[in-house]
Order: sequence, then C-alpha cells, then structure tokens
Amino acid sequence: MTATTQENSTHAPAADGAAGGRIVLGRNQYGKAEVRLVRITRDTDRHAIEDLNVTSQLHGDFESAHTEGDNSKVVATDTQKNTVYALAKDGVGSPEAFLLRLGTHFTECFDWVTGGRWAAEQYGWERINDHDHAFSRNKSETRTAVLLVEGARRHLVAGIQDLTVLKSTGSEFHGFPRDRYTTLAETTDRILATDVTARWRYNTLDVDFNSVYASVRRILLDAFAQTHSLALQQTMFQMGKEVLEAHPEIQEIKMSLPNKHHFLVDLAPFGLDNPNEVFFAADRPYGLIEATVEREGAPEESAVWANTPGFC
Amino acid sequence: MTATTQENSTHAPAADGAAGGRIVLGRNQYGKAEVRLVRITRDTDRHAIEDLNVTSQLHGDFESAHTEGDNSKVVATDTQKNTVYALAKDGVGSPEAFLLRLGTHFTECFDWVTGGRWAAEQYGWERINDHDHAFSRNKSETRTAVLLVEGARRHLVAGIQDLTVLKSTGSEFHGFPRDRYTTLAETTDRILATDVTARWRYNTLDVDFNSVYASVRRILLDAFAQTHSLALQQTMFQMGKEVLEAHPEIQEIKMSLPNKHHFLVDLAPFGLDNPNEVFFAADRPYGLIEATVEREGAPEESAVWANTPGFC
Amino acid sequence: MTATTQENSTHAPAADGAAGGRIVLGRNQYGKAEVRLVRITRDTDRHAIEDLNVTSQLHGDFESAHTEGDNSKVVATDTQKNTVYALAKDGVGSPEAFLLRLGTHFTECFDWVTGGRWAAEQYGWERINDHDHAFSRNKSETRTAVLLVEGARRHLVAGIQDLTVLKSTGSEFHGFPRDRYTTLAETTDRILATDVTARWRYNTLDVDFNSVYASVRRILLDAFAQTHSLALQQTMFQMGKEVLEAHPEIQEIKMSLPNKHHFLVDLAPFGLDNPNEVFFAADRPYGLIEATVEREGAPEESAVWANTPGFC
Amino acid sequence: MTATTQENSTHAPAADGAAGGRIVLGRNQYGKAEVRLVRITRDTDRHAIEDLNVTSQLHGDFESAHTEGDNSKVVATDTQKNTVYALAKDGVGSPEAFLLRLGTHFTECFDWVTGGRWAAEQYGWERINDHDHAFSRNKSETRTAVLLVEGARRHLVAGIQDLTVLKSTGSEFHGFPRDRYTTLAETTDRILATDVTARWRYNTLDVDFNSVYASVRRILLDAFAQTHSLALQQTMFQMGKEVLEAHPEIQEIKMSLPNKHHFLVDLAPFGLDNPNEVFFAADRPYGLIEATVEREGAPEESAVWANTPGFC
Repeated sequence: MTATTQENSTHAPAADGAAGGRIVLGRNQYGKAEVRLVRITRDTDRHAIEDLNVTSQLHGDFESAHTEGDNSKVVATDTQKNTVYALAKDGVGSPEAFLLRLGTHFTECFDWVTGGRWAAEQYGWERINDHDHAFSRNKSETRTAVLLVEGARRHLVAGIQDLTVLKSTGSEFHGFPRDRYTTLAETTDRILATDVTARWRYNTLDVDFNSVYASVRRILLDAFAQTHSLALQQTMFQMGKEVLEAHPEIQEIKMSLPNKHHFLVDLAPFGLDNPNEVFFAADRPYGLIEATVEREGAPEESAVWANTPGFC
Repeated sequence: MTATTQENSTHAPAADGAAGGRIVLGRNQYGKAEVRLVRITRDTDRHAIEDLNVTSQLHGDFESAHTEGDNSKVVATDTQKNTVYALAKDGVGSPEAFLLRLGTHFTECFDWVTGGRWAAEQYGWERINDHDHAFSRNKSETRTAVLLVEGARRHLVAGIQDLTVLKSTGSEFHGFPRDRYTTLAETTDRILATDVTARWRYNTLDVDFNSVYASVRRILLDAFAQTHSLALQQTMFQMGKEVLEAHPEIQEIKMSLPNKHHFLVDLAPFGLDNPNEVFFAADRPYGLIEATVEREGAPEESAVWANTPGFC
Repeated sequence: MTATTQENSTHAPAADGAAGGRIVLGRNQYGKAEVRLVRITRDTDRHAIEDLNVTSQLHGDFESAHTEGDNSKVVATDTQKNTVYALAKDGVGSPEAFLLRLGTHFTECFDWVTGGRWAAEQYGWERINDHDHAFSRNKSETRTAVLLVEGARRHLVAGIQDLTVLKSTGSEFHGFPRDRYTTLAETTDRILATDVTARWRYNTLDVDFNSVYASVRRILLDAFAQTHSLALQQTMFQMGKEVLEAHPEIQEIKMSLPNKHHFLVDLAPFGLDNPNEVFFAADRPYGLIEATVEREGAPEESAVWANTPGFC
Repeated sequence: MTATTQENSTHAPAADGAAGGRIVLGRNQYGKAEVRLVRITRDTDRHAIEDLNVTSQLHGDFESAHTEGDNSKVVATDTQKNTVYALAKDGVGSPEAFLLRLGTHFTECFDWVTGGRWAAEQYGWERINDHDHAFSRNKSETRTAVLLVEGARRHLVAGIQDLTVLKSTGSEFHGFPRDRYTTLAETTDRILATDVTARWRYNTLDVDFNSVYASVRRILLDAFAQTHSLALQQTMFQMGKEVLEAHPEIQEIKMSLPNKHHFLVDLAPFGLDNPNEVFFAADRPYGLIEATVEREGAPEESAVWANTPGFC
C-alpha cells in the first residue's frame, strides 16, 4: 500500500486539536499477577486440595506514583501477594468467593482504593483410587473467574477454558457465498473440533459457584455433542442458549471457539480411498468464532469485559 | 467466603427482570486467525522479507448463521485466508497498511460486512553479513498492529511486545504504606526488569508507519534507560509521555509492564556478602503495572481496546 | 574461572592427534517430524478416534547427500509424511504397532535404509456422555512410543509423560548431609509433587501394547500414592520396581521426575499459624530425580536411549 | 498391525532369561534444575550482566536413597542450588568455566560423588545506546554448555540454539527417489529456513570459551548464507565442516536442523501468478535433519551425548 492511499483517506478518526492536548495519565491498574496458591484442607485424614493462580490489581488514586514516583499510596504488590496467602488461611471455597473476599479486603482497608480487578485460574485434581491424600491433576480444562469492582458495583464472571472437544461426524458446512477468492469445497460431513473458552457473567452474587460451574460445563459438553452442526456459529449459539435457559443467574455468556481444522488427507495418489478416516490435524491458521449470547434488553456492556482478554 | 456473605450482598448487579428476557445473539465476530504470511520482494537480486501472522475477523449481519445455521452470508474463513495471500501479491509495506487494505476489501466487497477487526504480528529479520538473500530472525521484539473498522470509522493501533529490558541500578522502591500484611523491605538500589508491551492508537492514518514504529521503539528504550526510577509506574508514565511528546499523530499509548523480580540472594549463611551482585530471577508471581498515557480531553474510550487483550 | 585453571587441567580429554584428522560425516538421521495424524474408525455408528503425532527418521547410506548434495537416495521427508498417512488407512491399533509397521516399510522398501527411528505421541480422548461420535480430550497424560531399528534389531520403548501427581502428606525428607552451603530444614511432613515421565523398554514384541500401557499407568499411580516417601528417589524406585515385577515383558524402565516444590508460606508475620495448609507452588528451580530400574544382568545399554532425550 | 505379525517376529530383542532377573537400580542422577542466576559485575560504573539457567546433577553412590530412603549421602538439591549462587559470587566468566568450577566443587567435596552432569543456558543482553547499566535482551539465540564428569574424565560440550535463519533463494531440491508414496515436485528455487541447534565437543579445556563461541556462531551463519544448497543435509555438513576446519580444539559438532517449510501459495485460482513471492510458513510437520561432523579416527562415542537430548 502506498502512502497516497492513506493520505486520501477521508474516514480517518483524526483529532487534530486533541493532538495538542496536555499529556495525562489515563486508566491504570497495578498489582501482583499469577500468585500460585495451593490450599490443603486437612481437618480430617481425608485431605482436599484447591490449586489456584491468583492475580490482584488495584484501581484508585495512584496518579502521584506515576507522575512523581510518590509511593505513599502504592500498596506494594508484595503486600497483595501476602494478602492472598493470608486470606487463604481461612479457606478458598471457590475461586469466585475467594476473589470477592480479596476485593472486599482491599477496597475496605485502603481509602484510596476505589476498586480493582481480581482474577483466578483453578486447576482440577482427582483422587488416585479414592486415596485420602494422593491426587492426580485433571488437565482437561481450566476454571476461571474474574471480579471487577467499581466503587459499590461488583461484576463477576466465571469461565472455563482449554476444554477440547471433537465430533467425528454430524457437522456440515455449505451454502456460503463464493467470490473471486473462494476455493473451499462444500461438505456435508466433516470433523468439527474446538477448544472451548467460555465466560459467563452473573447477575447476582447469590450463587453456589461450584455447582453452577459443574452444571455449565456439563451443558456446554452436551450441547456440543447433541447439536447437528451446520456451522460452528450455530453450535456455539446453541451451547450458550442452553446455558442461559438453565441458569437465570447468568446474564450473558461469551464464547471464543477456534475451528481446529482436520483436513481429509488425499490418498488417491496412492490408489487408496479415504471415506473420512485419515485426517491431518492442522495448527495454523484456524477459524475463530466468537459471540455473546445474552438476555434481551440487557443493560449496557459491563466494564468487566474490557479487562477480560480474548472476547468480542 | 461463606454463602451468607454473598446472600447479604447489597452491591450485586442483580437484574431480576433481565433474567427472564428472551435469549438473543449479542456481539459477535468470526474469521481466520494466525495466517502465516511470508512475503519476499525480489524485484532485484537484493531480496527483502516481510514475515507476518495475520488475523481477519468480520462484523456484520451474521445472525442467521448462529440461529439457523444459514451460511448464505458467511464469507468462509478459508476465503478470508485466501484473500490475505492474494492481497499480499501486491506487497505488504507495513502491517498497518496491509490491515487497512484488508479492511477496505472486506467491507467494500460484502454489503452485510459492516466492519471487522484485523490484526497482525510482524517478525523482524536481519541480513546475515549484508547478504542479498540470507537472513536471521531478530527475536528480541515483535511488532503488532490492530485495525478496528466500525462502519466509516477506522481505529488503528500499533504496538510492540516481547521487548525485555533491565537496569542493574538506578531503581529505588520505598515510601509505600505498611499494613498488617506488609513485609517487603524498602530499597534504594534494586534491579528493574520488564517485558515491554505497548500499544499506541493513531489519530490519523496519514502516518509513515515504519518510521514511527522505529521511533517509538527507540523512545521507549531510551526513556527506560534514562529514567532514574522511584517506581515502575513512574518509569512507565515517562516512557509514554515521551512517545506522545514526540508523536502528535499518536492519541494515546497503553502499556502493560510486568515487574520481573530479581531477588538478591542471601549469601550471609555462607559467610559471603552480596553487594547487589548475585540475583535469583523469579518467574511467578510478578508485579503487573498497566496504564494509559493520553492527551487531555481525549474523546470517549475507543472501541478498539475492547478487542485488544491485556490492557486496562 | 581463570584460564590458568583450565590450562593446568590434567584431566582434559585432549586428543591432539585427533584434531588433525580428516573431517567426515558421523552419525546422522533425517525425516519428517510431528506428522499430526487423526484416524477415525467408523465401521459402525459408534466411532473411535486415534490421535497421534508421528516422527519418522531414516538411517542408512546418505553420505553423498551431505557431501555432494546428491539426493538420489534421499527418500523425501514429504514422502515419509505421505507414507504415515497411507499406512494409517489400514488402521493404527497402538502407537507401538504403528511404528513397527513404519519401520518395516522403510527398511524393506529401500535397500540403503538400514534402520531408523520412529516415534509417536498419542493423545487421549473420552466419549462425551457415552456419545457415539462426540469426544473430549483427556489432557492429563500423553502416551509415547519410540522404535529404533538397527538392521535386524528392533528396540521398542513405550512411555507416559505429563502425568502430574501430588501427595499432601506422607512425604518426609531428612538425614541428608549438611555442608557449608546447606540451609534446608529437615521435614517429616511435606507436599510431594511431580510430573511423571517414564519410558520402558520391551524385551519382546509379543505384547498387547494397549493393555500393558494401561497397566503400567495404573501401577505408577498406585505406587506413588501408596509409598510413604522418605525421598523422591525411594518413591521413584518403588514405582519402577512394581512395574517390572508385574511385567516380565519389560526389561527396564527409566523415569525422570521433577520435584515440584510446594513451599509452606510463613504466615507468622501476620499472626497466623500455618499447619501445612497454605503453600506457594514454585516454578523454578525444581529438583530433578532420574533413574533406571532394570533386571540384573541386563545386557549393554540399548542404543535406543541415545536417541531418547531427557533420561540418564 | 495384527498381533500375529508381532508374534511372528524373529527380530525381537527377546531376552527371556533376563526377564527373571532381580530388579535393581541402574544408572541414576539427581540434582537441581533451572537455577536462574543473574550475575551483575559492578566493579566500575559500567556494569556487566551474565544471565544463566543452571542445572546441577550428581552421579555417585546413591543406591540406599533409592532402595531404603536413606538420605545420608544425598546432597540436597537445595544445597546444590545454594552452591550455584555461592560460587557465582566469585564471578561466572563463561558458562563452560562456571560449570567446570561446579563440577570440581561437588566431586572434590563429597567422596561418594564420582561425577555428574552440569548444564547451562546463557541469555544474551545488549546495552541500550551504550548505557552503563541499562540493557535489552537479545533473544535471537541461546548459548548452551554441558559438562559431564566421569571420575577423572571431563567431557565438555558447548552449543547454540534457537538461531533462526532463512534464505529466500539459492536452495534447490531435486533428484530424490520417487516411490508409490512420492508426490513432492522437484524444485530449483525454494525458501530454505531452519532453527540452528548445534553442539560441539571440545578435545581440550584450554579454550577461550567466549571467543570460540562467537567464532562458531559467525561461521555457522556465514556457511548457511554462502552455501548454494542442493539439500539441507549439504548445507548442514558444510556448516559443521567449516567449524571444525577453523577450530582444532573442537572434536566433533552435532547439529539438529528442522526444515521449516515455506510453501508457495497457489494464487492461480485468483488469476495471479506467484513467482516465489507469497509463501505460507507452516508449523507442522517439518523436516528434521541431524548429523555429526567429526574428525576421522575419533574415539568411541563420548558418554556426554547420552545425556544431551535431541541429537542423533
């Protein structure tokens, strides 16, 4: 592209006057990221394990730290880390409940902390042969939670990621428009595979977070399996719809689903047919399908999403 | 946290009525991610190489694909990939210019495509001993670009990431508040290290993108090196301020800087002193310092950031 | 270290004469790595899935390719990839069986191919709610296999990796020697956690590979869980011993076990005790414990291990 | 493959008698892995930085730890970590020199430690604008070193990895055999790209390690650039040959070079030609070309390679 094309642009969001403005601090946050917390509950011989990766970030009046290097209001990130561990002494319970306790602590203890963003990943463990204190990691998915506090408002998002699913049939893709650059053949039988990343926002805090997580996970898997797919978009919408139908406490759900292509290998040059048996699983590029499924008449976009990467 | 605490909450963003609303499709986008494009310019014996990772996502009227599996408007992600390669035949020039061409193509060619999000990473290559056609990868940083098109509006963000810097002195941290959970000692001499991720938004498209990128990169490095740091926040703000002072075409810059802790090893048990010589470079947790530096009186938050992960 | 110290070395494996020798090609191999193969068995409505990552490398007379660029004997790596897919048409069965077929193919079809190294990772999938053709990935472990063919000899190694396990009690560590650099406290109750990587070599090919894999996996988990550990070395040896006791067809087993440290957090500064409840899960450094458990009187080291990274 | 095929095998390295042998501990080693060490030299205002990732593993009489959980000879991995930091107080100098000091320390201080394996990665840093104490990471390559001590013998291997290079022309590939499974077209002009991993073994310890590293790196780059390639094997052999010709202190060099495929995109369906301009850079599968270049009459295979992953 030549510079001329750019110069001719009439759509540029130019803001000539703005460019002359005084340079100031805009939105900011800081904290400690990826605090690796393992909490063993050992009140009886039958231990339980909770394994989290916690991030704490504070919002508030931190301007002088930026402009003058004045740290008098900067709750050290090391202190935030210590607080994560100290609060864990009283138990975790669920990532959502734990983040709520962190948010309350920091906003109540420091006048100038007006809010913040707290996030966690939780990793699953299963007992080895029902053993009392021996476990193996279930790596097939990761549970996530994000809490955004803005003054008196609390936005709470739960999620799941890294959940890889595949259908070996029951997926079609045809009827798409064909232009100069279209070479893709239509198909009525393909492999459909994706890594499910989903995040849902609660409209109440009165939730049994562990139960709802288990239920949403089950619904997402079932809907993926049961939907005869004409497009990954269709499967995705159905997955979200079923979650919202079952869970009135969920206001909206966002999903980001890569279309992990499995290409049928052409065995004809070797004198072999290939009736959807032998596939090449490709890495890149991949399709990327993203959407929000929500309740009609939802209020404006929650601020929590601006801080939640990877979703439209 | 006990359930009681949650039940007592009066801050919950409850939306009882909303929970009963009809379930509908909200914001959505789709496309092809991570199209790996290498473009060789070989008009003369002295070749040039451009190496990009391109993602194309379309916005528009795709509701029936979600609700009915009707693909009649779904420009196949495979077609989007083909288009990336076809347009590259005419050259790349810069990631920003290339994304602008992609955005124009898709919005002009398909009535129902009202916008989209196009993004690219660009990887650097250097000549081996000034050789005409042999190169080695410079992995010390990655250049990024994001274009968001919303109807007639184009939001363009350039960036740099993976740029790791360190000062072995000239960094202090003290004067921070001490509460029950504070154990960190004050220091007047520590290592300061971070991975610079910065993204800046242009207020015009009339930009020599390659020159400005090189300039911003240089300013970020210089400001990091030259600033005697009382807080990483202060260093970060100074870095952003210098970029905006030098570049009126940049409206705002967002930075996300991990504080990569280097802990002084206690050698006293071994009868050795350690005057800031031997350090343990920790992985996790790490501080995470994020801010926007902007021109006063900037208009409302650009929609481009909602789709740009990792920034407050 | 000063140069003097090096010069004074009398242990240097110096080989002055050797340094003057003619420069020649030594051991070499080549092929295609990481061929991603997904094989769907769909003889009935109840599909099965096998998901592998296959590497094929040939040994033989390839000297002229190296010294003269003569490719007349170079079976193209693209051809090796095609062969993987073509042979998969007849089914996979187990990674071991599939590698044996690949090895036989290449050594029988090309006179100058005297052997080779074939390797595979296999990824697990589970049915979603017993669905006929919908699956979710079990990421909690990876199955591996390596076949080394040297003329008429076939060395076959099976393995498991990425299997993360943890005991929340039942692990001690004390009685170790203390020197000038020892600061570690003794403990009678710590968390013991590791990622199991194990590889076992068969002394026969007459094996039901899938059954033995499942059995070895179960034994490794049980032995980890059941062993009251005084040292990770002890746990590791016990794990290997139980595998060999149960499986006469296994000649030796090698394990590489990181000691994934979980450090008890000192909550005393916050006025809290911490009776093995709150831990920091560290990333690096980590202990690394490796050993072979074998049958006495085993013959010389199998050549297969030289090509199998990560084991002593 | 059917079980029958396996049963019929006459090549199986069966060892019926062996299977009945007593189960014993074979080769073993243990230690601390990935000790992240940053050493600042600040004797003057112009600081220097050395950044390493060090692994220490001991060999010796550790049988009772495995068989009885007796730790009386187990130099704690924590002690090994402490020793790395304590010895760094006296400087690093080069990864090779530092590993030699570690090896001497452990084998001299503990009677039952008869040897060990010490390894390091070193990360490069460059001054920012010739600043005295501000640096940026050069991520374009990683320097490696491995020391194996077996009693009085020391095997020392230096290396480079992650060095990515590409030629946009000057690479051909034709004349390879064609069988039933061959579909690859011959070419006289393709992109040749690889990530150089090389490891060379010294035949003396009387080496200026930093100078030789810089020289080998330069030779590898130059040889890659200058060689008109008929096969990646040819380029690789030439690279190794030039290193050995220039450095009599190097006994052998092993290289592992992925053939990073760049596929010419077929633009013909779009009415465009593509004279080697637009390429798709593929991830997997990739070619993998490995060889040793050595001096004729070299003694038997050095034991160091058995512990050095990734090389034939």
